[in-house]
Amino acid sequence: MVKTARVIGAGRVGSAVSARLEERGVELREDGAELVLLCVPDAAIAEVARGVDSGPWIAHASGGTPLSALAPHTRRFGLHPLQTFTRARGPEQLDGAYAAVTAETEEARAVGFELAELLGLEPFELADEHRELYHAGAVVASNSLVTLHDAAAELLEAAGAPPEALEPLMRRVIENRFELTGPVARGDWETIERHLEAIHSRRPSLEPLYRTLTQATEALAAR
Amino acid sequence: MVKTARVIGAGRVGSAVSARLEERGVELREDGAELVLLCVPDAAIAEVARGVDSGPWIAHASGGTPLSALAPHTRRFGLHPLQTFTRARGPEQLDGAYAAVTAETEEARAVGFELAELLGLEPFELADEHRELYHAGAVVASNSLVTLHDAAAELLEAAGAPPEALEPLMRRVIENRFELTGPVARGDWETIERHLEAIHSRRPSLEPLYRTLTQATEALAAR
Repeated sequence: MVKTARVIGAGRVGSAVSARLEERGVELREDGAELVLLCVPDAAIAEVARGVDSGPWIAHASGGTPLSALAPHTRRFGLHPLQTFTRARGPEQLDGAYAAVTAETEEARAVGFELAELLGLEPFELADEHRELYHAGAVVASNSLVTLHDAAAELLEAAGAPPEALEPLMRRVIENRFELTGPVARGDWETIERHLEAIHSRRPSLEPLYRTLTQATEALAAR
Repeated sequence: MVKTARVIGAGRVGSAVSARLEERGVELREDGAELVLLCVPDAAIAEVARGVDSGPWIAHASGGTPLSALAPHTRRFGLHPLQTFTRARGPEQLDGAYAAVTAETEEARAVGFELAELLGLEPFELADEHRELYHAGAVVASNSLVTLHDAAAELLEAAGAPPEALEPLMRRVIENRFELTGPVARGDWETIERHLEAIHSRRPSLEPLYRTLTQATEALAAR
Protein backbone atom coordinates (compact mmCIF):
# COMPACT_ATOMS: atom_id res chain seq x y z
CA MET A 1 0.00 0.00 0.00
CA VAL A 2 1.25 3.50 -0.90
CA LYS A 3 2.33 5.31 2.29
CA THR A 4 4.22 8.32 0.89
CA ALA A 5 3.54 10.31 -2.25
CA ARG A 6 4.49 13.49 -4.02
CA VAL A 7 1.79 15.24 -6.04
CA ILE A 8 3.12 17.72 -8.59
CA GLY A 9 0.48 20.26 -9.62
CA ALA A 10 -2.16 21.98 -7.51
CA GLY A 11 -4.80 22.60 -10.14
CA ARG A 12 -8.33 21.19 -10.10
CA VAL A 13 -7.23 17.55 -10.18
CA GLY A 14 -4.01 17.91 -8.13
CA SER A 15 -5.82 19.69 -5.29
CA ALA A 16 -8.54 17.05 -5.02
CA VAL A 17 -6.04 14.19 -5.24
CA SER A 18 -3.70 15.69 -2.61
CA ALA A 19 -6.57 16.28 -0.23
CA ARG A 20 -7.85 12.72 -0.70
CA LEU A 21 -4.40 11.16 -0.14
CA GLU A 22 -4.03 13.12 3.09
CA GLU A 23 -7.51 12.01 4.17
CA ARG A 24 -6.42 8.41 3.56
CA GLY A 25 -3.29 8.78 5.69
CA VAL A 26 -0.74 9.01 2.87
CA GLU A 27 2.16 11.28 3.77
CA LEU A 28 2.73 13.94 1.11
CA ARG A 29 6.39 14.87 0.82
CA GLU A 30 8.75 16.55 -1.63
CA ASP A 31 11.63 14.09 -1.35
CA GLY A 32 11.88 10.34 -1.06
CA ALA A 33 8.23 9.53 -1.84
CA GLU A 34 7.37 6.05 -3.11
CA LEU A 35 5.15 7.51 -5.80
CA VAL A 36 5.23 10.74 -7.82
CA LEU A 37 1.93 11.73 -9.38
CA LEU A 38 1.98 14.39 -12.09
CA CYS A 39 -1.20 16.47 -12.14
CA VAL A 40 0.14 19.01 -14.62
CA PRO A 41 -1.10 20.11 -18.08
CA ASP A 42 -0.61 17.47 -20.80
CA ALA A 43 1.97 19.59 -22.62
CA ALA A 44 4.12 19.85 -19.46
CA ILE A 45 4.19 16.13 -18.54
CA ALA A 46 7.33 15.14 -20.49
CA GLU A 47 9.41 18.02 -19.18
CA VAL A 48 8.27 17.64 -15.57
CA ALA A 49 8.86 13.85 -15.74
CA ARG A 50 12.44 14.36 -16.94
CA GLY A 51 13.07 16.56 -13.90
CA VAL A 52 12.01 13.83 -11.43
CA ASP A 53 14.78 11.62 -10.00
CA SER A 54 14.53 7.97 -10.99
CA GLY A 55 13.51 5.41 -8.41
CA PRO A 56 9.92 5.92 -7.26
CA TRP A 57 6.79 5.00 -9.19
CA ILE A 58 5.75 7.83 -11.48
CA ALA A 59 2.30 8.37 -12.95
CA HIS A 60 0.40 11.01 -14.87
CA ALA A 61 -3.28 11.86 -14.56
CA SER A 62 -3.85 12.75 -18.19
CA GLY A 63 -6.58 11.29 -20.38
CA GLY A 64 -4.90 11.13 -23.77
CA THR A 65 -1.16 11.25 -23.08
CA PRO A 66 0.86 8.06 -23.78
CA LEU A 67 3.08 6.52 -21.12
CA SER A 68 6.15 7.33 -23.21
CA ALA A 69 5.77 10.93 -22.01
CA LEU A 70 7.03 9.68 -18.64
CA ALA A 71 10.47 8.71 -20.07
CA PRO A 72 13.11 7.98 -18.97
CA HIS A 73 11.15 6.41 -16.08
CA THR A 74 10.14 2.78 -16.47
CA ARG A 75 8.29 2.20 -13.16
CA ARG A 76 5.35 4.12 -14.52
CA PHE A 77 1.62 4.12 -15.22
CA GLY A 78 -1.23 6.43 -16.15
CA LEU A 79 -4.25 7.04 -13.93
CA HIS A 80 -6.94 9.25 -15.43
CA PRO A 81 -9.93 10.04 -13.20
CA LEU A 82 -12.90 10.14 -15.58
CA GLN A 83 -14.49 13.12 -13.89
CA THR A 84 -14.79 16.89 -14.20
CA PHE A 85 -13.40 18.84 -11.25
CA THR A 86 -14.12 22.26 -9.83
CA ARG A 87 -12.07 24.26 -7.36
CA ALA A 88 -15.25 24.88 -5.38
CA ARG A 89 -15.29 21.28 -4.17
CA GLY A 90 -12.88 18.94 -2.42
CA PRO A 91 -11.76 15.30 -2.54
CA GLU A 92 -15.35 14.02 -2.42
CA GLN A 93 -15.39 14.83 -6.13
CA LEU A 94 -13.46 11.60 -6.67
CA ASP A 95 -16.09 9.38 -5.05
CA GLY A 96 -17.90 7.09 -7.44
CA ALA A 97 -15.97 8.16 -10.53
CA TYR A 98 -14.10 5.67 -12.69
CA ALA A 99 -10.38 5.82 -13.49
CA ALA A 100 -8.56 4.64 -16.60
CA VAL A 101 -5.35 2.87 -15.58
CA THR A 102 -2.70 2.29 -18.24
CA ALA A 103 0.27 0.10 -17.39
CA GLU A 104 2.96 -1.90 -19.16
CA THR A 105 3.59 -4.50 -16.47
CA GLU A 106 1.44 -6.49 -14.09
CA GLU A 107 3.17 -4.79 -11.16
CA ALA A 108 2.47 -1.29 -12.53
CA ARG A 109 -1.14 -2.27 -13.15
CA ALA A 110 -1.48 -3.45 -9.54
CA VAL A 111 -0.02 -0.19 -8.18
CA GLY A 112 -2.28 1.85 -10.48
CA PHE A 113 -5.40 -0.05 -9.38
CA GLU A 114 -4.38 0.25 -5.72
CA LEU A 115 -3.87 4.00 -6.07
CA ALA A 116 -7.20 4.41 -7.86
CA GLU A 117 -9.03 2.56 -5.08
CA LEU A 118 -7.20 4.56 -2.43
CA LEU A 119 -8.44 7.73 -4.17
CA GLY A 120 -12.04 6.45 -4.12
CA LEU A 121 -12.09 5.69 -7.85
CA GLU A 122 -13.31 2.60 -9.70
CA PRO A 123 -10.37 1.49 -11.89
CA PHE A 124 -10.50 -0.12 -15.31
CA GLU A 125 -7.62 -0.99 -17.60
CA LEU A 126 -6.99 1.04 -20.74
CA ALA A 127 -4.41 0.13 -23.39
CA ASP A 128 -1.85 2.84 -24.12
CA GLU A 129 -2.67 2.89 -27.84
CA HIS A 130 -6.38 3.49 -27.12
CA ARG A 131 -5.97 6.49 -24.84
CA GLU A 132 -6.73 9.09 -27.54
CA LEU A 133 -9.96 7.42 -28.61
CA TYR A 134 -11.00 6.98 -24.99
CA HIS A 135 -10.21 10.61 -24.19
CA ALA A 136 -12.15 11.80 -27.24
CA GLY A 137 -15.15 9.93 -25.83
CA ALA A 138 -14.68 11.52 -22.43
CA VAL A 139 -14.56 14.98 -24.00
CA VAL A 140 -17.71 14.30 -26.03
CA ALA A 141 -19.56 13.19 -22.89
CA SER A 142 -18.46 16.10 -20.70
CA ASN A 143 -17.37 19.19 -22.63
CA SER A 144 -19.93 18.68 -25.39
CA LEU A 145 -22.59 18.24 -22.74
CA VAL A 146 -21.87 21.80 -21.64
CA THR A 147 -22.19 22.92 -25.27
CA LEU A 148 -25.45 21.06 -25.67
CA HIS A 149 -26.85 22.67 -22.55
CA ASP A 150 -25.69 26.15 -23.53
CA ALA A 151 -27.19 25.81 -27.01
CA ALA A 152 -30.49 24.54 -25.59
CA ALA A 153 -30.49 27.33 -22.97
CA GLU A 154 -29.96 29.90 -25.72
CA LEU A 155 -33.01 28.56 -27.59
CA LEU A 156 -35.15 28.60 -24.44
CA GLU A 157 -34.05 32.13 -23.60
CA ALA A 158 -34.83 33.27 -27.14
CA ALA A 159 -38.30 31.77 -26.62
CA GLY A 160 -38.72 33.59 -23.30
CA ALA A 161 -38.55 30.35 -21.29
CA PRO A 162 -36.37 29.84 -18.18
CA PRO A 163 -33.19 27.89 -19.06
CA GLU A 164 -33.07 26.32 -15.57
CA ALA A 165 -36.10 24.30 -16.66
CA LEU A 166 -33.67 22.15 -18.67
CA GLU A 167 -31.94 20.70 -15.62
CA PRO A 168 -34.60 18.28 -14.37
CA LEU A 169 -35.02 17.14 -17.98
CA MET A 170 -31.31 16.49 -18.51
CA ARG A 171 -30.93 14.73 -15.17
CA ARG A 172 -33.84 12.45 -16.01
CA VAL A 173 -32.40 11.53 -19.41
CA ILE A 174 -29.40 10.13 -17.51
CA GLU A 175 -31.58 8.47 -14.82
CA ASN A 176 -33.65 6.83 -17.58
CA ARG A 177 -30.44 5.31 -18.97
CA PHE A 178 -30.43 7.38 -22.15
CA GLU A 179 -33.67 6.05 -23.56
CA LEU A 180 -34.43 7.97 -26.75
CA THR A 181 -37.82 9.72 -26.90
CA GLY A 182 -38.95 12.72 -28.94
CA PRO A 183 -39.43 13.53 -32.63
CA VAL A 184 -36.54 11.50 -34.12
CA ALA A 185 -37.55 8.40 -32.12
CA ARG A 186 -41.11 8.85 -33.43
CA GLY A 187 -39.97 9.53 -37.00
CA ASP A 188 -41.70 12.91 -36.78
CA TRP A 189 -39.74 14.81 -39.45
CA GLU A 190 -42.40 17.53 -39.69
CA THR A 191 -41.52 18.65 -36.16
CA ILE A 192 -37.79 18.58 -36.99
CA GLU A 193 -38.47 20.77 -40.06
CA ARG A 194 -40.41 23.28 -37.97
CA HIS A 195 -37.56 23.38 -35.44
CA LEU A 196 -35.09 24.09 -38.26
CA GLU A 197 -37.28 26.91 -39.58
CA ALA A 198 -37.53 28.47 -36.13
CA ILE A 199 -33.78 28.17 -35.49
CA HIS A 200 -32.99 29.47 -38.97
CA SER A 201 -35.05 32.60 -38.42
CA ARG A 202 -34.25 33.25 -34.75
CA ARG A 203 -30.82 31.71 -33.92
CA PRO A 204 -29.15 30.86 -37.25
CA SER A 205 -25.76 30.34 -35.57
CA LEU A 206 -27.17 27.17 -33.97
CA GLU A 207 -28.50 25.69 -37.22
CA PRO A 208 -25.40 23.61 -38.13
CA LEU A 209 -25.31 22.16 -34.61
CA TYR A 210 -29.01 21.25 -34.70
CA ARG A 211 -28.66 19.65 -38.15
CA THR A 212 -25.60 17.60 -37.20
CA LEU A 213 -27.11 16.44 -33.91
CA THR A 214 -30.33 15.41 -35.64
CA GLN A 215 -28.43 13.43 -38.28
CA ALA A 216 -26.38 11.73 -35.56
CA THR A 217 -29.52 10.96 -33.54
CA GLU A 218 -31.13 9.46 -36.64
CA ALA A 219 -28.06 7.31 -37.35
CA LEU A 220 -27.84 6.08 -33.75
CA ALA A 221 -31.62 5.50 -33.52
CA ALA A 222 -31.48 3.40 -36.69
CA ARG A 223 -29.20 0.81 -35.08
CA MET B 1 -59.73 23.83 -8.67
CA VAL B 2 -60.15 21.09 -11.28
CA LYS B 3 -62.30 18.24 -9.85
CA THR B 4 -63.11 16.22 -12.97
CA ALA B 5 -61.00 15.59 -16.04
CA ARG B 6 -60.82 13.46 -19.12
CA VAL B 7 -57.37 12.44 -20.35
CA ILE B 8 -57.24 11.29 -23.96
CA GLY B 9 -54.18 9.16 -24.69
CA ALA B 10 -52.52 6.52 -22.53
CA GLY B 11 -48.97 6.77 -23.81
CA ARG B 12 -45.94 7.75 -21.73
CA VAL B 13 -47.27 11.19 -20.82
CA GLY B 14 -50.97 10.34 -20.65
CA SER B 15 -50.38 7.43 -18.27
CA ALA B 16 -48.28 9.49 -15.86
CA VAL B 17 -50.74 12.42 -15.98
CA SER B 18 -53.80 10.21 -15.41
CA ALA B 19 -52.14 8.47 -12.46
CA ARG B 20 -51.14 11.80 -10.91
CA LEU B 21 -54.62 13.30 -11.31
CA GLU B 22 -56.14 10.27 -9.60
CA GLU B 23 -53.57 10.55 -6.80
CA ARG B 24 -54.64 14.17 -6.36
CA GLY B 25 -58.33 13.25 -6.08
CA VAL B 26 -59.41 14.40 -9.53
CA GLU B 27 -62.18 12.21 -10.91
CA LEU B 28 -61.33 10.88 -14.37
CA ARG B 29 -64.43 10.47 -16.53
CA GLU B 30 -65.34 10.10 -20.18
CA ASP B 31 -68.32 12.47 -20.18
CA GLY B 32 -69.03 15.82 -18.57
CA ALA B 33 -65.47 16.52 -17.37
CA GLU B 34 -64.51 20.16 -16.68
CA LEU B 35 -61.24 19.68 -18.52
CA VAL B 36 -60.15 17.54 -21.47
CA LEU B 37 -56.42 16.97 -21.75
CA LEU B 38 -55.08 15.62 -25.04
CA CYS B 39 -51.98 13.46 -24.56
CA VAL B 40 -51.88 12.25 -28.15
CA PRO B 41 -49.23 12.50 -30.88
CA ASP B 42 -48.79 16.03 -32.27
CA ALA B 43 -50.15 15.05 -35.68
CA ALA B 44 -53.39 13.74 -34.09
CA ILE B 45 -54.19 16.77 -31.91
CA ALA B 46 -56.30 18.71 -34.43
CA GLU B 47 -58.47 15.76 -35.37
CA VAL B 48 -58.99 14.58 -31.81
CA ALA B 49 -59.81 18.15 -30.70
CA ARG B 50 -62.49 18.48 -33.39
CA GLY B 51 -64.12 15.34 -32.03
CA VAL B 52 -64.47 16.74 -28.50
CA ASP B 53 -67.79 18.44 -27.62
CA SER B 54 -67.49 22.16 -26.90
CA GLY B 55 -67.88 23.37 -23.34
CA PRO B 56 -65.07 22.12 -21.10
CA TRP B 57 -61.53 23.46 -20.99
CA ILE B 58 -59.36 21.70 -23.53
CA ALA B 59 -55.58 21.49 -23.50
CA HIS B 60 -52.81 19.67 -25.29
CA ALA B 61 -49.53 18.46 -23.83
CA SER B 62 -47.41 19.06 -26.91
CA GLY B 63 -44.17 21.04 -26.96
CA GLY B 64 -44.26 22.65 -30.38
CA THR B 65 -47.92 22.58 -31.43
CA PRO B 66 -49.77 25.94 -31.63
CA LEU B 67 -53.04 26.49 -29.78
CA SER B 68 -54.87 26.85 -33.09
CA ALA B 69 -54.66 23.05 -33.36
CA LEU B 70 -57.34 22.97 -30.64
CA ALA B 71 -59.92 24.72 -32.88
CA PRO B 72 -62.86 25.17 -32.80
CA HIS B 73 -62.46 25.28 -29.01
CA THR B 74 -61.74 28.67 -27.47
CA ARG B 75 -61.50 27.73 -23.77
CA ARG B 76 -58.07 26.26 -24.38
CA PHE B 77 -54.42 26.21 -23.39
CA GLY B 78 -51.23 24.24 -23.85
CA LEU B 79 -49.38 22.53 -21.02
CA HIS B 80 -46.11 20.87 -21.96
CA PRO B 81 -44.27 19.00 -19.20
CA LEU B 82 -40.58 19.62 -19.92
CA GLN B 83 -39.59 16.08 -19.06
CA THR B 84 -38.82 12.73 -20.67
CA PHE B 85 -41.13 9.90 -19.63
CA THR B 86 -40.75 6.15 -19.53
CA ARG B 87 -43.43 3.53 -19.12
CA ALA B 88 -41.33 1.90 -16.42
CA ARG B 89 -42.15 4.71 -13.98
CA GLY B 90 -45.27 6.36 -12.64
CA PRO B 91 -46.60 9.80 -11.78
CA GLU B 92 -43.50 10.63 -9.68
CA GLN B 93 -41.85 11.36 -13.02
CA LEU B 94 -43.68 14.69 -13.00
CA ASP B 95 -42.19 15.85 -9.68
CA GLY B 96 -39.77 18.73 -9.99
CA ALA B 97 -40.11 19.16 -13.73
CA TYR B 98 -41.14 22.43 -15.31
CA ALA B 99 -44.14 22.94 -17.58
CA ALA B 100 -44.61 25.42 -20.42
CA VAL B 101 -48.10 26.92 -20.25
CA THR B 102 -49.41 28.71 -23.31
CA ALA B 103 -52.66 30.64 -23.01
CA GLU B 104 -54.54 33.40 -24.81
CA THR B 105 -56.50 34.75 -21.87
CA GLU B 106 -55.76 35.45 -18.23
CA GLU B 107 -58.38 32.88 -17.23
CA ALA B 108 -56.84 30.17 -19.41
CA ARG B 109 -53.40 31.00 -18.02
CA ALA B 110 -54.74 30.62 -14.46
CA VAL B 111 -56.31 27.22 -15.26
CA GLY B 112 -53.10 26.09 -16.97
CA PHE B 113 -50.94 27.11 -14.01
CA GLU B 114 -53.36 25.47 -11.58
CA LEU B 115 -53.32 22.22 -13.55
CA ALA B 116 -49.50 22.27 -13.76
CA GLU B 117 -49.20 22.70 -9.99
CA LEU B 118 -51.78 19.98 -9.39
CA LEU B 119 -49.63 17.68 -11.52
CA GLY B 120 -46.52 18.53 -9.49
CA LEU B 121 -44.98 20.68 -12.20
CA GLU B 122 -43.40 24.15 -11.98
CA PRO B 123 -45.24 26.26 -14.58
CA PHE B 124 -43.84 29.08 -16.68
CA GLU B 125 -45.57 31.05 -19.42
CA LEU B 126 -44.63 30.49 -23.05
CA ALA B 127 -45.93 32.59 -25.95
CA ASP B 128 -47.67 30.62 -28.69
CA GLU B 129 -45.35 32.01 -31.39
CA HIS B 130 -42.26 30.84 -29.48
CA ARG B 131 -43.29 27.23 -28.98
CA GLU B 132 -41.23 25.86 -31.89
CA LEU B 133 -38.03 27.52 -30.74
CA TYR B 134 -38.65 26.38 -27.17
CA HIS B 135 -39.35 22.83 -28.28
CA ALA B 136 -36.20 22.77 -30.42
CA GLY B 137 -34.26 23.66 -27.27
CA ALA B 138 -35.97 20.91 -25.30
CA VAL B 139 -35.10 18.37 -28.00
CA VAL B 140 -31.45 19.52 -28.07
CA ALA B 141 -31.21 19.14 -24.28
CA SER B 142 -32.86 15.72 -24.11
CA ASN B 143 -32.75 13.73 -27.35
CA SER B 144 -29.33 15.07 -28.35
CA LEU B 145 -28.08 14.19 -24.89
CA VAL B 146 -28.86 10.56 -25.70
CA THR B 147 -26.95 10.94 -28.97
CA LEU B 148 -23.99 12.50 -27.19
CA HIS B 149 -23.91 9.66 -24.69
CA ASP B 150 -24.24 6.99 -27.36
CA ALA B 151 -21.44 8.53 -29.43
CA ALA B 152 -19.16 8.83 -26.39
CA ALA B 153 -20.03 5.26 -25.34
CA GLU B 154 -19.13 4.03 -28.83
CA LEU B 155 -15.71 5.70 -28.56
CA LEU B 156 -15.10 4.22 -25.10
CA GLU B 157 -16.14 0.75 -26.28
CA ALA B 158 -13.85 1.04 -29.30
CA ALA B 159 -11.06 1.88 -26.82
CA GLY B 160 -11.92 -1.12 -24.65
CA ALA B 161 -13.20 1.07 -21.79
CA PRO B 162 -16.52 0.49 -19.97
CA PRO B 163 -19.19 2.92 -21.25
CA GLU B 164 -20.92 2.99 -17.83
CA ALA B 165 -17.89 5.01 -16.66
CA LEU B 166 -19.44 7.99 -18.46
CA GLU B 167 -22.43 8.26 -16.13
CA PRO B 168 -20.74 9.73 -13.03
CA LEU B 169 -18.97 12.17 -15.35
CA MET B 170 -22.13 13.32 -17.09
CA ARG B 171 -24.07 13.64 -13.82
CA ARG B 172 -21.27 15.79 -12.37
CA VAL B 173 -21.24 18.10 -15.40
CA ILE B 174 -24.86 18.91 -14.55
CA GLU B 175 -24.19 19.17 -10.79
CA ASN B 176 -21.30 21.56 -11.53
CA ARG B 177 -23.75 23.77 -13.41
CA PHE B 178 -22.24 23.16 -16.82
CA GLU B 179 -18.83 24.65 -16.08
CA LEU B 180 -16.63 24.07 -19.12
CA THR B 181 -13.34 22.22 -18.51
CA GLY B 182 -11.17 20.18 -20.89
CA PRO B 183 -9.14 20.85 -24.03
CA VAL B 184 -11.32 23.55 -25.65
CA ALA B 185 -11.51 25.50 -22.37
CA ARG B 186 -7.70 25.28 -22.13
CA GLY B 187 -7.15 26.18 -25.79
CA ASP B 188 -5.40 22.81 -26.20
CA TRP B 189 -5.87 22.32 -29.97
CA GLU B 190 -3.14 19.68 -30.12
CA THR B 191 -5.31 17.34 -28.05
CA ILE B 192 -8.32 18.07 -30.27
CA GLU B 193 -6.23 17.24 -33.36
CA ARG B 194 -5.12 13.93 -31.82
CA HIS B 195 -8.75 13.11 -31.01
CA LEU B 196 -9.73 13.80 -34.61
CA GLU B 197 -6.96 11.55 -35.91
CA ALA B 198 -8.04 8.73 -33.58
CA ILE B 199 -11.72 9.11 -34.53
CA HIS B 200 -10.84 9.39 -38.22
CA SER B 201 -8.96 6.10 -38.14
CA ARG B 202 -11.17 4.14 -35.74
CA ARG B 203 -14.73 5.55 -35.89
CA PRO B 204 -14.92 7.79 -38.99
CA SER B 205 -18.73 7.91 -38.85
CA LEU B 206 -18.42 10.03 -35.68
CA GLU B 207 -15.99 12.55 -37.18
CA PRO B 208 -18.58 15.11 -38.40
CA LEU B 209 -20.29 15.04 -34.98
CA TYR B 210 -16.98 15.57 -33.15
CA ARG B 211 -16.01 18.43 -35.48
CA THR B 212 -19.35 20.22 -35.18
CA LEU B 213 -19.46 19.81 -31.40
CA THR B 214 -15.92 21.15 -31.05
CA GLN B 215 -16.71 24.18 -33.22
CA ALA B 216 -19.85 24.86 -31.21
CA THR B 217 -17.95 24.47 -27.92
CA GLU B 218 -15.33 26.91 -29.18
CA ALA B 219 -17.99 29.44 -30.20
CA LEU B 220 -19.83 29.17 -26.87
CA ALA B 221 -16.58 29.27 -24.87
CA ALA B 222 -15.54 32.46 -26.68
CA ARG B 223 -18.54 34.40 -25.33
